[in-house]
Amino acid sequence: MPELRKDPVVGRWVIMATERARRPSDFSRQAEERKGGPCVFCPGMEHLTPPEVLAYRDAGSRPNNPGWRVRGVPNRFPALRIEGGLGRRGEGMYDLMNGVGAHEVLIESPDHDRMLADEEPAQIEEIFHAYRERVIDLQRDERFRYVIIFKNHGAEAGASLEHPHSQLIALPILPLSVQAELRGASAYFALKERCIFCDMVEQESVDRRRLVDENPSFITVCPFAARFPFEMWIVPRVHGSHFEHASDGEYRAFAYALKAALGALKAALGDPPFNYIIHSAPVGEAARRHYHWHMEITPALTKVAGFEVGTGFHINPVPPEFAAGFLRDEISGANPAAAVASTNGASSS
Amino acid sequence: MPELRKDPVVGRWVIMATERARRPSDFSRQAEERKGGPCVFCPGMEHLTPPEVLAYRDAGSRPNNPGWRVRGVPNRFPALRIEGGLGRRGEGMYDLMNGVGAHEVLIESPDHDRMLADEEPAQIEEIFHAYRERVIDLQRDERFRYVIIFKNHGAEAGASLEHPHSQLIALPILPLSVQAELRGASAYFALKERCIFCDMVEQESVDRRRLVDENPSFITVCPFAARFPFEMWIVPRVHGSHFEHASDGEYRAFAYALKAALGALKAALGDPPFNYIIHSAPVGEAARRHYHWHMEITPALTKVAGFEVGTGFHINPVPPEFAAGFLRDEISGANPAAAVASTNGASSS
Repeated sequence: MPELRKDPVVGRWVIMATERARRPSDFSRQAEERKGGPCVFCPGMEHLTPPEVLAYRDAGSRPNNPGWRVRGVPNRFPALRIEGGLGRRGEGMYDLMNGVGAHEVLIESPDHDRMLADEEPAQIEEIFHAYRERVIDLQRDERFRYVIIFKNHGAEAGASLEHPHSQLIALPILPLSVQAELRGASAYFALKERCIFCDMVEQESVDRRRLVDENPSFITVCPFAARFPFEMWIVPRVHGSHFEHASDGEYRAFAYALKAALGALKAALGDPPFNYIIHSAPVGEAARRHYHWHMEITPALTKVAGFEVGTGFHINPVPPEFAAGFLRDEISGANPAAAVASTNGASSS
Repeated sequence: MPELRKDPVVGRWVIMATERARRPSDFSRQAEERKGGPCVFCPGMEHLTPPEVLAYRDAGSRPNNPGWRVRGVPNRFPALRIEGGLGRRGEGMYDLMNGVGAHEVLIESPDHDRMLADEEPAQIEEIFHAYRERVIDLQRDERFRYVIIFKNHGAEAGASLEHPHSQLIALPILPLSVQAELRGASAYFALKERCIFCDMVEQESVDRRRLVDENPSFITVCPFAARFPFEMWIVPRVHGSHFEHASDGEYRAFAYALKAALGALKAALGDPPFNYIIHSAPVGEAARRHYHWHMEITPALTKVAGFEVGTGFHINPVPPEFAAGFLRDEISGANPAAAVASTNGASSS
């Protein structure tokens, strides 16, 4: 059973994979990623994954067979296990619990080579619906306090398989960064009686120097204190604390916003590795006035080494005003197709 | 002038290099590191660095000329500037200040190819003395609240030059992780009236499963909630909050401990990229009963991507008990020379 262990000083939880302990020789060379399909996520290879927990399928197709557009399966090598109790306990001064949780993969497309940036907005919308459906299912399990929805794109960003996919990890604890966000947003609300993200949407919409893209439902900005070159946040204009509570219309506009953002990133930087994470309030809790869900996209252009991780302190060589200008140009000027798509997305939401 | 910008939600400060803004094309391929000497840090090339701020030299040698054993110089491309006031100010809802600080390089050896793991303990001791001397000089500047001392080894860990060197960054703010450590240690002290690190030294010395190495002044452990495979912490046995207040005898024992730790890492994993950071209480403050300086060594074996950085949440595939066993074997069994050196270090301190 994997363990969740807590750093006694800072309170940081770590998933410790106690079962598949690796030997030092496993690290002597990087595993080579096999390029090109078919892979375990490709249609026709459904028997190579655990049985699906979700699939949006064409009429007449059968479960765990081709015909799906989006498919959710448990991770074959889960970092956490779904079975058992939490078993919170001490070990001398330390705290730990069983590595209980869920670790799922959401295969974003049957097409091995079709990147998210190149998908139709309707397909991206289905991916968001799939995220929501899985979150709502997972939150029925009362052991889980948080569901992280994220995507690794490119080997440098931690993707071990090339076929486009996202991951969901359901956790019995709140990650430290989620706690910090909730605490910071709550302190701001206590002081101002306004949501800090709503204020950010307002200021960035007026200021426009860090604005990459906007539609009536979302703005995309390079954040003021961006940690990474070309970091982008996509933030809904209308306040809402939970991603899974957003309306279908918002998902549609969000799909256009994400396509435009990833398209600009791909065009400006030549398909760089990146991660995105959906930041949302803890699952199963009531809507919060002070927290505001959003997506953070972090390109992996610089080496993020122990220094950044160890200090939580970043040096960003590209000011967000500068990055936003380049990305904006890709959307509005150099890449008219993306601009049209984005505008359409705006008017249809 | 670079800027220090604060994330309004979580309070994280970022150094924003506003001057040397890069274009997207700068990221399309990684700069290739030139292998082998001589380089700007090699003896005879002193004119290619800014004038030295520290040098431990052989008798008769002249400043900014060969003959040094350890040499400190300002970084040619500093992330922060030494001139000017802090200029704390707002920009709408955001906070920022001038990027005032110091950014120095400590060249650890005249020998381009001699890694720290292969240095004589006496040389490593001199490096620690140099760290101390620079910290004490920098803390005279009342604008500075913290000095980060760290080393990047290997391109994957962020080292842009091969010649062995460390870096010092003096900051006008406390990094978030330092705040979190101080807060956590303080809360523990309030509850127990004991230092949490002293308790850790006690428990790990008795438990021994995570113990990599020990001498009368230091223990080296793989921490209970290690974020990274083969992460090690070197912790002084005797309580002290500030690295720069440690005794000469402690520096001597610390040199043996660091050499043993890096030697074991190199032997077990074939010279992996790594970072180390000295965690110490804020400069210029009085000694604290609840904080305890130490070094954290984090090998860069796994891709640390946006996911870890974004959530502060880590998945570690190698339990520390497992990693400690391998590293311990390198020191005590497979590598008798290191074991002898470590024991000598112990008895001489």
